[in-house]
Amino acid sequence: MTQQASKLVIVTEKLLLKKIAKIIDEAGATGYTVVEVGGKGSRNIRSSGKPIVGDNNSNIKFEVLTRDRDTAVKISDEVAAKFFDDYSGIAYLCNVMEVLHAHTF
Amino acid sequence: MTQQASKLVIVTEKLLLKKIAKIIDEAGATGYTVVEVGGKGSRNIRSSGKPIVGDNNSNIKFEVLTRDRDTAVKISDEVAAKFFDDYSGIAYLCNVMEVLHAHTF
Amino acid sequence: MTQQASKLVIVTEKLLLKKIAKIIDEAGATGYTVVEVGGKGSRNIRSSGKPIVGDNNSNIKFEVLTRDRDTAVKISDEVAAKFFDDYSGIAYLCNVMEVLHAHTF
Repeated sequence: MTQQASKLVIVTEKLLLKKIAKIIDEAGATGYTVVEVGGKGSRNIRSSGKPIVGDNNSNIKFEVLTRDRDTAVKISDEVAAKFFDDYSGIAYLCNVMEVLHAHTF
Repeated sequence: MTQQASKLVIVTEKLLLKKIAKIIDEAGATGYTVVEVGGKGSRNIRSSGKPIVGDNNSNIKFEVLTRDRDTAVKISDEVAAKFFDDYSGIAYLCNVMEVLHAHTF
Repeated sequence: MTQQASKLVIVTEKLLLKKIAKIIDEAGATGYTVVEVGGKGSRNIRSSGKPIVGDNNSNIKFEVLTRDRDTAVKISDEVAAKFFDDYSGIAYLCNVMEVLHAHTF
């Protein structure tokens, strides 16, 4: 009893964690994970003005499973519109997924 | 010399780490990674009864590369059968993968 | 305004972090994330000789978005040629990606 799904990945600055979690919740996604990551974006510095080095953990990566592509795009659109002018961030989609087991996904 | 593979992702509660690692080993998967993640599942609370907040790190995410889909499904089936009645968890599969370099994968 | 992309994933030993970040930079990738992971590879021990247990965090996982497959393969080839004889590591590619929003990706 498998189901297709989309996986939305959002990498952005840590201080946006709660605001983005709220957007994900309100869009009706049933679950997500979030983890701190180091790295470097295309602007090479974060909005704080501090340069990013490879071994710090100052960004966060959300992974959101959604039943359909529309929900993923809706979340991505809202996050980008609200934050990506002022903060570093990227949102991308993994198209092919198959959910094998979950509580109520 | 690339090879196709499947990637199985399992997100569940941290206390299951060693038991799931054992299942993965015994299924013959050659390797996996595991990382602590925060997040929220479809039940909104973990089995401990504590609510999940976005910035704690109380879940784990396994990523397992397998040579074929059957091995990934076997691992997923066993993990779900043993634990997903009693613990929060989801297992999903990324179908399209290409392994570029590895020791003995 | 979405764009196709490739995602290269490299899992290897933590001490290679800065050297691999340099290779990614020089290949012209616009960004990457890196996170510490636990896990087990096909050699079952790391080059340090210490056995890997599931709950330590001694490896790193890079995720690199590139506009085309060639850039991802170039990075993977260089990393493997320089390090994978002497260190544990795997590099794999997720083919299907869609970048929804980013600064300059």
